Amino acid sequence: MQNKKNVYLFSEGNAEMRELLGGKGANLAEMTRIGLPVPPGFTISTDACREYFRRDQQLWDELRQEILTALHKLEEKMGKRFGDKENPLLVSVRSGAVFSMPGMMDTVLNLGLNDETVLGLAAAANNERFAYDCYRRFIQMFADVVLKVDHYLFENALEEKKRARGVQYDTELTAADLKELVAEYKQIVFKETKKSFPQEPVEQLILAVLAVFDSWNNQRAIVYRELHKIPHHLGTAVNVQAMVFGNLGDDSGTGVAFTRNPADGTKELYGEFLINAQGEDVVAGIRTPLDIAKMAEYMPDVYKQFTDVCELLEKHYRDVQDIEFTVERGKLYLLQTRAGKRTATAAVKIAVNMAEEGLITREEAIMRVETAQLDQLLHRRIDQETKPEPIAKGLPASPGAASGQIVFDADEAEKLAEEGVKVILVRPETTPDDIHGIVAAEGVLTSRGGMTSHAAVVARGMGKCCVTGCEALKIDLGAKTMTVGEQEFKAGDIISIDGSTGEVFAGKVAMIDPELSAEFETLLRWADEVRKLDVRANADNPDDAAKAREFGAAGIGLCRTEHMFMSQDRLPLVQEMILAKNEEERKRALEKLLPMQQSDFEGIFRAMDGLPVTIRLLDPPLHEFLPNLEDLLVEVTLLKERGNDPELLREKQELLKQVRSLHELNPMLGHRGCRLGVVTPSIYKMQVLAIFQAAAKLIAEGIKVIPEIMIPLVGLDEELRILRELVVETAEEVMAKTGQKFEYKVGTMIELPRACITADQIAAHADFFSFGTNDLTQTTFGYSRDDAEGKFLLHYLQEKILKENPFAVLDRDGVGELVKIASEKGRATKPEIKLGICGEHGGDPSSIEFCHIIGLNYVSCSPFRVPIARLAAAQAAIIHKK
Amino acid sequence: MQNKKNVYLFSEGNAEMRELLGGKGANLAEMTRIGLPVPPGFTISTDACREYFRRDQQLWDELRQEILTALHKLEEKMGKRFGDKENPLLVSVRSGAVFSMPGMMDTVLNLGLNDETVLGLAAAANNERFAYDCYRRFIQMFADVVLKVDHYLFENALEEKKRARGVQYDTELTAADLKELVAEYKQIVFKETKKSFPQEPVEQLILAVLAVFDSWNNQRAIVYRELHKIPHHLGTAVNVQAMVFGNLGDDSGTGVAFTRNPADGTKELYGEFLINAQGEDVVAGIRTPLDIAKMAEYMPDVYKQFTDVCELLEKHYRDVQDIEFTVERGKLYLLQTRAGKRTATAAVKIAVNMAEEGLITREEAIMRVETAQLDQLLHRRIDQETKPEPIAKGLPASPGAASGQIVFDADEAEKLAEEGVKVILVRPETTPDDIHGIVAAEGVLTSRGGMTSHAAVVARGMGKCCVTGCEALKIDLGAKTMTVGEQEFKAGDIISIDGSTGEVFAGKVAMIDPELSAEFETLLRWADEVRKLDVRANADNPDDAAKAREFGAAGIGLCRTEHMFMSQDRLPLVQEMILAKNEEERKRALEKLLPMQQSDFEGIFRAMDGLPVTIRLLDPPLHEFLPNLEDLLVEVTLLKERGNDPELLREKQELLKQVRSLHELNPMLGHRGCRLGVVTPSIYKMQVLAIFQAAAKLIAEGIKVIPEIMIPLVGLDEELRILRELVVETAEEVMAKTGQKFEYKVGTMIELPRACITADQIAAHADFFSFGTNDLTQTTFGYSRDDAEGKFLLHYLQEKILKENPFAVLDRDGVGELVKIASEKGRATKPEIKLGICGEHGGDPSSIEFCHIIGLNYVSCSPFRVPIARLAAAQAAIIHKK
Repeated sequence: MQNKKNVYLFSEGNAEMRELLGGKGANLAEMTRIGLPVPPGFTISTDACREYFRRDQQLWDELRQEILTALHKLEEKMGKRFGDKENPLLVSVRSGAVFSMPGMMDTVLNLGLNDETVLGLAAAANNERFAYDCYRRFIQMFADVVLKVDHYLFENALEEKKRARGVQYDTELTAADLKELVAEYKQIVFKETKKSFPQEPVEQLILAVLAVFDSWNNQRAIVYRELHKIPHHLGTAVNVQAMVFGNLGDDSGTGVAFTRNPADGTKELYGEFLINAQGEDVVAGIRTPLDIAKMAEYMPDVYKQFTDVCELLEKHYRDVQDIEFTVERGKLYLLQTRAGKRTATAAVKIAVNMAEEGLITREEAIMRVETAQLDQLLHRRIDQETKPEPIAKGLPASPGAASGQIVFDADEAEKLAEEGVKVILVRPETTPDDIHGIVAAEGVLTSRGGMTSHAAVVARGMGKCCVTGCEALKIDLGAKTMTVGEQEFKAGDIISIDGSTGEVFAGKVAMIDPELSAEFETLLRWADEVRKLDVRANADNPDDAAKAREFGAAGIGLCRTEHMFMSQDRLPLVQEMILAKNEEERKRALEKLLPMQQSDFEGIFRAMDGLPVTIRLLDPPLHEFLPNLEDLLVEVTLLKERGNDPELLREKQELLKQVRSLHELNPMLGHRGCRLGVVTPSIYKMQVLAIFQAAAKLIAEGIKVIPEIMIPLVGLDEELRILRELVVETAEEVMAKTGQKFEYKVGTMIELPRACITADQIAAHADFFSFGTNDLTQTTFGYSRDDAEGKFLLHYLQEKILKENPFAVLDRDGVGELVKIASEKGRATKPEIKLGICGEHGGDPSSIEFCHIIGLNYVSCSPFRVPIARLAAAQAAIIHKK
Repeated sequence: MQNKKNVYLFSEGNAEMRELLGGKGANLAEMTRIGLPVPPGFTISTDACREYFRRDQQLWDELRQEILTALHKLEEKMGKRFGDKENPLLVSVRSGAVFSMPGMMDTVLNLGLNDETVLGLAAAANNERFAYDCYRRFIQMFADVVLKVDHYLFENALEEKKRARGVQYDTELTAADLKELVAEYKQIVFKETKKSFPQEPVEQLILAVLAVFDSWNNQRAIVYRELHKIPHHLGTAVNVQAMVFGNLGDDSGTGVAFTRNPADGTKELYGEFLINAQGEDVVAGIRTPLDIAKMAEYMPDVYKQFTDVCELLEKHYRDVQDIEFTVERGKLYLLQTRAGKRTATAAVKIAVNMAEEGLITREEAIMRVETAQLDQLLHRRIDQETKPEPIAKGLPASPGAASGQIVFDADEAEKLAEEGVKVILVRPETTPDDIHGIVAAEGVLTSRGGMTSHAAVVARGMGKCCVTGCEALKIDLGAKTMTVGEQEFKAGDIISIDGSTGEVFAGKVAMIDPELSAEFETLLRWADEVRKLDVRANADNPDDAAKAREFGAAGIGLCRTEHMFMSQDRLPLVQEMILAKNEEERKRALEKLLPMQQSDFEGIFRAMDGLPVTIRLLDPPLHEFLPNLEDLLVEVTLLKERGNDPELLREKQELLKQVRSLHELNPMLGHRGCRLGVVTPSIYKMQVLAIFQAAAKLIAEGIKVIPEIMIPLVGLDEELRILRELVVETAEEVMAKTGQKFEYKVGTMIELPRACITADQIAAHADFFSFGTNDLTQTTFGYSRDDAEGKFLLHYLQEKILKENPFAVLDRDGVGELVKIASEKGRATKPEIKLGICGEHGGDPSSIEFCHIIGLNYVSCSPFRVPIARLAAAQAAIIHKK
């Protein structure tokens, strides 16, 4: 083991040597290798660390010798000597494990300072205060990390000194003050360790290196590794690097810069710098930094070098770089470079531009854009051009924007929403009791709670916009008012909220629908060439259909028909149909509904001219269309008690009886979906008639209509067989009556475990399967989404019993496995069967990846998520290329 | 084809030739083959039928020749000639397909009669009336079947004749009347067919044979075959058999007999006979038949021959035979023999006795008893010794017996049952709205409806006793009274019903628990030697546990703990625990519950000394223990309206709020099962403490306790990991505290599709899986049992969309497949894992067979079904022997 090389100069390594040199060491070596001006240094390998632990934490001669040899080479490179009284070499000593463990292990800066070299540093910097500040910090850091002296002792002394001098900030202390502090610090060290502070730089270095090795096994590092499943035996490397200073005069400086604009993606240097300053000064915010472009004026040569370096870095790393640099006496040093964080807009533009520049491939461009980030581009948002001053600002807890009447109570929210009123639920904070109110509201606003409060988590889960912790609001639930400063709002007043910014506005504010930038369109075009999955949209009306089309949907994958039944003018007819005493009465009501349904479908077919539209026949249980049982009960109780209107009482009692007879203990598992169609075929018959009559009419107008009838909640092949027959008969009727021919498909939603397990039987009657993963998740897990989200599910997510909300991200082990089984069984019976997914998972990238893996034909998602789905499908195709 | 033999004398065939000779032909041949005195005859094969259809329904010469040859042989054997004027041979012509199609095809009796032979028959029988009655019937049958003359024409003529003679019954017509009728019938035939009724017997025979061939394709036969999936190409055979007559004098007679007593199984001839009579006379009930034993007096020789024949038949068919016979002039003829239908008691006794006699093997004895039939032996029943006179009798719609207060309304039934009152729901008929009342009642009594009425189907599904169609009851729902004759019963009066007999009694009637006969015990002992599945019982209290043990349960497979929370003295404590404002308050309530739970478990462990007891921790959602939401809402509404008790109002409003906050839209899929244990561990902790403290205490007394803790509703392996830890910690605590060591197991109910699909992960933390197929059926099908049964499920069963109620018979394709997947995955992770089933399917023979097939270790069912399960498990083992 001892014969092995343990210490590597930065110039001896490269990016591939991560395992030996750790992440940081390999990066520093790589930058050095490609000719970047990195302050020189060397890395003591992870091998050495492991050997050190094998030797029971004892240094061995060979290692010491190797370190000293490397140190000499460093001195040569820097033209400075370690311990030199005139122009001393100082170094930093940092840990650097194979897997990043930020902040878990120790660092010592300015190592090499002692009572003599501090003078040399002062002279070189022409700044005594700076030198003693460095020395003071070094003593504290070294004492803490290496000598295990409690750091609060030093902090106490510092506070004491500031108090004595009557100043508030460290920076107000003079050179003399700091000199005194250095002396006091050394006293503290002596008192605590019974030894003087080590003055010998080489001794300082060796002690620091070993302390960093030791820090691999400090408590917090062990816990971190356990949490992140990093093996304990790996050990850490140690990086020793020459210190450089940006505050040695006007030919020195420091800054940070992005190689492209991280806000909008424009190809331009973006950042700031400070002359004669250290990184800390930028952070402290005492001096205002200059735009990076100004550097061209102050230090033209260095600027030229820097722009060259930026170009080199982008070429080398093939991505936007976020760079920290220091100029020491006219010499540029790069301290760090890493991929730059960017906004979604920038991410898209940069990826497309770089591909166009030939820097990366189109596939790489596709992979560069994080789908999760795109969400912010695809929500409705407040029109920034016309927006008024916000009345308050809270936390941007869930993106999107909404306007509506203020309601302070979840029941009220639900009631108003049922009447078609748009509401914003305003609460000090929400609890699981408010879930139904959140469901009903357009958005949620709370005065308390953070980004992970109940309201925030639940709203994000539901894709509702939400502003939390808006502390400027004073909410009085008793009086039903909300006050902001002087301004008072009552229940029923209109407000608007922007969950992407946290802003709250009085009144209704203009919103704009998201639009795709030219680069985004380009990226999606590239994605379309790669992806295997078709992307359709879930849309129930012509507007949504048009939006979906604009966003590139290949058709409608789920058109729900129940919303069409809910509007004010139709609900009475729907209730008439439900409460019909006989088939005759029911037929009369259905006949009145038929032309309305037909016009719904005409609108959608027209919008989707040439593209397929999958229409799901009525799914929810019929009692959802009837008055609320509890409301009726209260009404009847009061009428009975008052006794003043026996006729109305009788009427309401009769209604209550009917509502009760349709009431279900578990409506989710009740008389709904195709069970309605099988038991009461006349409803489905009306819907299918409406679809085919609409199709026949539009075809006559020259529009291309491709209807696909989807039967929901099939669990028995016999259900589908019966209902397919009904559809086929009706199609033939309409063709005969209208003389128009049309193509159509009949398929089913697979949303019950039994349907998955018996998909081979069901496929015999289906042209397509569309996996309804919302309901499938409910039955597979046995979770009622209405009851679970925000209740025990919240607990499960917080405690990591569940890693993801299975309603947001498809559960691959359980639900996904069932989908896979169903796909295989369905294709075994009918190889040409078309398979898709239309649950909300259809817009989630991880779920889309899964759909790609198991070979579905398409996903269907909400119109605004179509672009995300197109990209996610392409990414999945690239990742799983072979 | 023509060279093949088409006609077989009975003496040329045997039981194996079913495909060629049809079922009836093969049976007649087999009886003839073993030397039984069967009236001779011959069979025209199914081959011939198929050939006939190939020849477009044309007879061919060879077949005609074969028939005539066989007919001559028949004449020789009978010593009678076809068409003989003195002693004519008459024959029957009957269809006989390979698969029985009862009543679907045609039959002609007494063929061979004409205007001359009828005189011979009259002389031979010394009974002119009999001969003309035969002739009249023959003409009608022949005309109907062969000549396609509408039979109502003959019936009209008959009615006309009776009216003219002023008599009511056919039997009152004289020989002269019948002679006239024969003439009129022949007139009808001539008028309808323009031809005389065929007088030539051979022509009659040929026409009849072809008519029977033709009847293979009559409408009702085609429909029947489609319904029963019988191939249409098979064709039918035709049996031509000599007629014999039991009414040719005092040396003739007819009778039916069982070779053993079909009511109790005693080994004795059982049946009745009539001297000088035909089978019809027995049915007509004009003369009282004699006990079969009397035959020894009247015709000792024939009786001796008959008893020999019975012995021979039992030996040959190795089962009790139900025999029809005729004695013609001192000669015994067997007309039919078949396995005798018997009561459950008799079935058991006969099977065991026959095995002991060496007639059948023990395995055959096990297979002989139909498990479905045993049900009647294993319900509580009215004590026949002490029972009073019933007040009325309806249809025995669902077995078992019960006493309770009369209620006329389902809501009322539910309310009283919640208060612990036992009720009998009495309705004219039930509808889906009454389901909750049926659930709540001990039994159901209706005045209308048959064995397949709503009440009957639903009650059988739930295993409730039920009497339907009790038309003697006059029910006045308005007045809430039920009248039987003079006797009036009011709501609240006690009645008793016996669903096995249909009897209704006033007041409470003594009931007896079922007991096993000695033969039943023997049969079950034999079954135990054969079966592979263990049988456990579901029992929640010491009484049930003791009953289970008595019936041979190998342990308790499911001890539910929620019933223990429901009793009057505990409910307030349980509510205190649920409504606790903090963990402190909850702990206090739980501490009070702990000793109560402990004593529950002590009772059960004591009863099950030495046998394992699987205890399921609390499963239902907590709101089930709170007051009903709707009741509270009415209460609060009224308190608010009246405004006279603000304090009570506040209190109730607070309670309503809490009840509402626990309320769930779909409680079946809500916060229950292990989710309670994970979110609020203190409840499970209390239960586990109670279990282990009970165990430690009884072990100290020398009792052997084998507790198995079962965690319900696990869907994520993490849930089980966490709760297993809680159990293990608690066990260690109790062991440390008491100094007692005990063994225990921790397992889970597999009752969610996700648990099945991820059983490999879950098995890592489980010693056993118990499939909770009730809930698994609910989630797999997406059926809420409470909502579905009696509602759409009833429709599905009636329309045969579902072949069986999946809550009664395990759905093999869906639920069963999931159970299979889970078993395979569970064993892949942990080969020694113990697998069982504890849903209601555990007592259903078909489901038990499935459990055997997929190799589970045990089934668990209600105590009274344990014997059925033991037998069913043995039958499954025998059926699937290799």
